[in-house]
Amino acid sequence: MEFYPPSLVRLIKHLSRLPGIGEKTATRLALHILRSRHEEAKGLSQSILEVKDKVRLCSKCFGLADTDPCSLCVNPNRDHSILCVVEQPSDLVAVEKTGAFKGLYHVLHGVLSPMNGIGPNDLKIKELAARVAQGEIQELILATNTNVEGESTASYLNELLKAYPVRVTRIASGVPMGSDLKYLDDVTIKRAMERRQDLKFG
Amino acid sequence: MEFYPPSLVRLIKHLSRLPGIGEKTATRLALHILRSRHEEAKGLSQSILEVKDKVRLCSKCFGLADTDPCSLCVNPNRDHSILCVVEQPSDLVAVEKTGAFKGLYHVLHGVLSPMNGIGPNDLKIKELAARVAQGEIQELILATNTNVEGESTASYLNELLKAYPVRVTRIASGVPMGSDLKYLDDVTIKRAMERRQDLKFG
Repeated sequence: MEFYPPSLVRLIKHLSRLPGIGEKTATRLALHILRSRHEEAKGLSQSILEVKDKVRLCSKCFGLADTDPCSLCVNPNRDHSILCVVEQPSDLVAVEKTGAFKGLYHVLHGVLSPMNGIGPNDLKIKELAARVAQGEIQELILATNTNVEGESTASYLNELLKAYPVRVTRIASGVPMGSDLKYLDDVTIKRAMERRQDLKFG
Repeated sequence: MEFYPPSLVRLIKHLSRLPGIGEKTATRLALHILRSRHEEAKGLSQSILEVKDKVRLCSKCFGLADTDPCSLCVNPNRDHSILCVVEQPSDLVAVEKTGAFKGLYHVLHGVLSPMNGIGPNDLKIKELAARVAQGEIQELILATNTNVEGESTASYLNELLKAYPVRVTRIASGVPMGSDLKYLDDVTIKRAMERRQDLKFG
């Protein structure tokens, strides 16, 4: 790397700080940028600044947005009485992509994790309670991940929200669609057996 | 992707145009940039522009450089009588990293490839002949790759340079160090047998 010109070395260093990009990949990317058209490189450079400049958190759902409130929160075609609670903006996008949910979201920006010193005050939990307290919301779907921290965050929220007259649900856990039981872990199969559902014929 | 804010989508699109970066990786990188410190993002953005602005080809060796001539070409500690001819700037760096070569370089910026319509005039071959014609150079090491195109480019240069009183050599080809014969291709083993060297005891 140190045999390239200083300005190229600086770009390689910056690129190699990105996650999953080592020095070799960074060098390849930097050489590509060097060879690319000027407008292309300028576009990339500007879009980086623009993202830092424009993207903010929606003050209602705390999703990523260029506007505040975000386009989802002001959309009259969405069901404003049902709220899906997720850990991260990327989880919001994962649910939204399915097209199966027509309500609004609430992004916690993390999970409770005493090991890492993350408590309720580090997440958007106060803000969630405040939204629920306004009374418009009738159902709250807890869609945190199904690992230990996600599960305990869901339990914590369930306890907290008992005080409000709102239906609290948790996304179903069980065997993922299209999977093979013999390759699945014990905990998932156990959970799928416990939460088995009646099949009704008629 | 389309569920993210427009400015973030633009960054994802720009990143996913880089080689080996798909939409998923681009999204992960864009979210990382969004979360990173402002100076960090600004540094990355600026270094992209700087590379396009500053890096040029050295007018002597055609390597990448911030200055012209490059630091190698003006270095009085290098042997100016021996020239290593490589295909690309990255090959120059690969040779330079070994520390085994103390002469100067000449970067062709490609190889002869009739299939892709690349002839002698598309490479820095005229410039190489001009350097040789000046008379200072005594040896020319042809270090193009050992694939079909690299080999035929080396042959072409060898023919061309017969006109000048200069020693022309080719990098040795054979079994790479540390490798296992049984995993090696036939052509390499055949070449290694043909070009076997005497071991002298004494």
